[in-house]
Amino acid sequence: MYKQKLAINGERLKDTLERFADFGRTDHNGVTRLALSEEDRLARDYFRSCCEELGMTVQIDDMGNMYATLAGIENKPPIVVGSHMDTVKKGGRFDGILGVAAGLEVVRTLVDNQIKPQIPLTIVNFTNEEGARFEPSMMSSGVLSGKFEKAAMLKKTDVNGVTFEDALHSIGYAGDAASRLKEATAFLELHIEQGPILEKETLTIGVVECVVGMVCYEIEVTGESDHAGTTPMDMRRDALFAANDLITKVRQQLGALHSDLVFTMGRMNVFPNIHTVIPNKVVFSLEARHKDPAVIKQVEEIIQSLTKLPSEQGCMIKSKKLWGRDTVWFNENICHALEQSVQSLGYPFKRMVSGAGHDAQFIASYIPTAMIFVPSIKGKSHSEDELTTWEDCEKGVNVLLETVLSLQS
Amino acid sequence: MYKQKLAINGERLKDTLERFADFGRTDHNGVTRLALSEEDRLARDYFRSCCEELGMTVQIDDMGNMYATLAGIENKPPIVVGSHMDTVKKGGRFDGILGVAAGLEVVRTLVDNQIKPQIPLTIVNFTNEEGARFEPSMMSSGVLSGKFEKAAMLKKTDVNGVTFEDALHSIGYAGDAASRLKEATAFLELHIEQGPILEKETLTIGVVECVVGMVCYEIEVTGESDHAGTTPMDMRRDALFAANDLITKVRQQLGALHSDLVFTMGRMNVFPNIHTVIPNKVVFSLEARHKDPAVIKQVEEIIQSLTKLPSEQGCMIKSKKLWGRDTVWFNENICHALEQSVQSLGYPFKRMVSGAGHDAQFIASYIPTAMIFVPSIKGKSHSEDELTTWEDCEKGVNVLLETVLSLQS
Repeated sequence: MYKQKLAINGERLKDTLERFADFGRTDHNGVTRLALSEEDRLARDYFRSCCEELGMTVQIDDMGNMYATLAGIENKPPIVVGSHMDTVKKGGRFDGILGVAAGLEVVRTLVDNQIKPQIPLTIVNFTNEEGARFEPSMMSSGVLSGKFEKAAMLKKTDVNGVTFEDALHSIGYAGDAASRLKEATAFLELHIEQGPILEKETLTIGVVECVVGMVCYEIEVTGESDHAGTTPMDMRRDALFAANDLITKVRQQLGALHSDLVFTMGRMNVFPNIHTVIPNKVVFSLEARHKDPAVIKQVEEIIQSLTKLPSEQGCMIKSKKLWGRDTVWFNENICHALEQSVQSLGYPFKRMVSGAGHDAQFIASYIPTAMIFVPSIKGKSHSEDELTTWEDCEKGVNVLLETVLSLQS
Repeated sequence: MYKQKLAINGERLKDTLERFADFGRTDHNGVTRLALSEEDRLARDYFRSCCEELGMTVQIDDMGNMYATLAGIENKPPIVVGSHMDTVKKGGRFDGILGVAAGLEVVRTLVDNQIKPQIPLTIVNFTNEEGARFEPSMMSSGVLSGKFEKAAMLKKTDVNGVTFEDALHSIGYAGDAASRLKEATAFLELHIEQGPILEKETLTIGVVECVVGMVCYEIEVTGESDHAGTTPMDMRRDALFAANDLITKVRQQLGALHSDLVFTMGRMNVFPNIHTVIPNKVVFSLEARHKDPAVIKQVEEIIQSLTKLPSEQGCMIKSKKLWGRDTVWFNENICHALEQSVQSLGYPFKRMVSGAGHDAQFIASYIPTAMIFVPSIKGKSHSEDELTTWEDCEKGVNVLLETVLSLQS
């Protein structure tokens, strides 16, 4: 339909990203733009004005999600692109906002070239993806997909006791349930990888075929506190020693399961945590992620087998499953369309999985969805060090544009 | 000199201990009597009145140490017995106070039997042994022995910013430097073991020949924080994994050194301590205690060898010596006198070391000193569960009495 290959304007994209980064820019060139904060309001206002300048219609739904729509020749369900504009505290300039700025740049390119799409094109900004101010993360896409209950979400509070509902009203972004994203032709989310794989393999684009499933356990090892100076080694029930042995076994057994399995003990607390007292309790988190549910099942079996008996020190071991989520597979047709676009542009790419969660995983439950990743330098994200080269950003948006065009027919 | 064997009054000793436990008794039959608190003042007042009733002279020195002296026939340097009356928060009914109550019971027994000792007998109460309100522990015996500077100690503050000096004045126990303990014939400290050895070996008395030397290190493992979901295992620098490997090696190598060596990693903090983030830092304490300085030297060599190279994960490892103290050997003549007393009483006993610190270790620098231990049930101390049977308390005080008498000639 559109024979000549269009290209987006990389300089303009960069300017747009830097302009958004001004809404909450930190001393070290990161961004703090918590959901429904003043910085978020300013970024939203700016986004709305940009969209309206382009002749788009902006609607807000009851969770504060924003939809800017460029009318199509046909009144079909739109192709939706976008992501989120909120960040974590001291986050980066790319996570989330890249997908929204990409949508703007795609529309600007169409408008520049006086192309009216066949199918309406909607840019979406999902409220509170990070969950940094109001838990849980991916809150609003979760409500759209029926994963979370709206009433419960509205009551969620930040550290100052402000409810999500009040914050939404106070920044003037409480809209109408009728505006919610319903039927759509496709949802495409361009996002930074947040991992080191593309950079390491010198690839530009990741075509993301799933968000991997995960389980998260809390493991508690209980021993006995005694005086560190007066208790012989063979009369101790040192919870730290028992935890040390347990973690070694966890690493050995999970490490042998599958090379793609990732597992992390990110949180650990020792009690009473005094240098002269033998620890009586160690509590740590253990989370594991893999796309294959059979592997996750093996992980859970290993955790259960390693925690069902006391340690050799006589410490009790308990494990509790905090939560789990299944792997969400994206739409194969959309993945294929993405691959075709990347190939037509000649960028090096691979199919890959997302180890991190994204709004796309909820939206995928009712709209044909897939994601595009661009490289994160050193895999950094949720950090002021987060970085994706402007060139890679540009290429990612070109893939998005190409795919939007390819889905017209 | 005193041919007939005296025996103390076990019931009266029990009553005295319970009376002291009323000054700060907790809901679970423990005691909170922080140094220079109102509870401490009441206990001190009671102790003073008991001593004065017995015809003793009570003096207070400039650190608030109390000395109650029963005059002797000869005006020789006194035999000093005693310990401390302060406790940790939610401590027990025996730690410290047993040694003071024991002194009272010895004097009462002498007075009951109309025995005036040849040598003056002084009961001492050292201020702030625990260091629970004002650091460091063993503060006042440390000043007496020249280990700590008085001026610096007076400025120490509690969590509310109250100085030691102000607290001392406010309870009315700021005395005169001229009253300080100087020359003495002997210092005998009866104390609970605070460890499980005597109970395990069904012994009643420990003749303590030293307070073991110790070293305390802080070890810091630095890796890199990355997203727990997006970073492949082989691209991580997980500080927790590196710490896990390091602790395993520490346990293997220190565990092989000497069966009497004790070592503890009581404090450990993980950063940023978020379940979805790979830890970038783990900091933990490592302390080890043994009477033989050659063993402590080996411990330090092992710590240095294990921390001089990065981990296999590429994490940096640093160790910092926080402090160390040498083994303090008690006076062999006094130890021998204690052994003779125990043997004459027929109690099962052993020579042993103290893994915990005591005022006696500082006093030993200028007065012939030794300690007597009685069993701690399950080794518990610094806890409301702290327990020594009344029978063992009584036997410990009988050993003290017998030794005081034996040292007269």
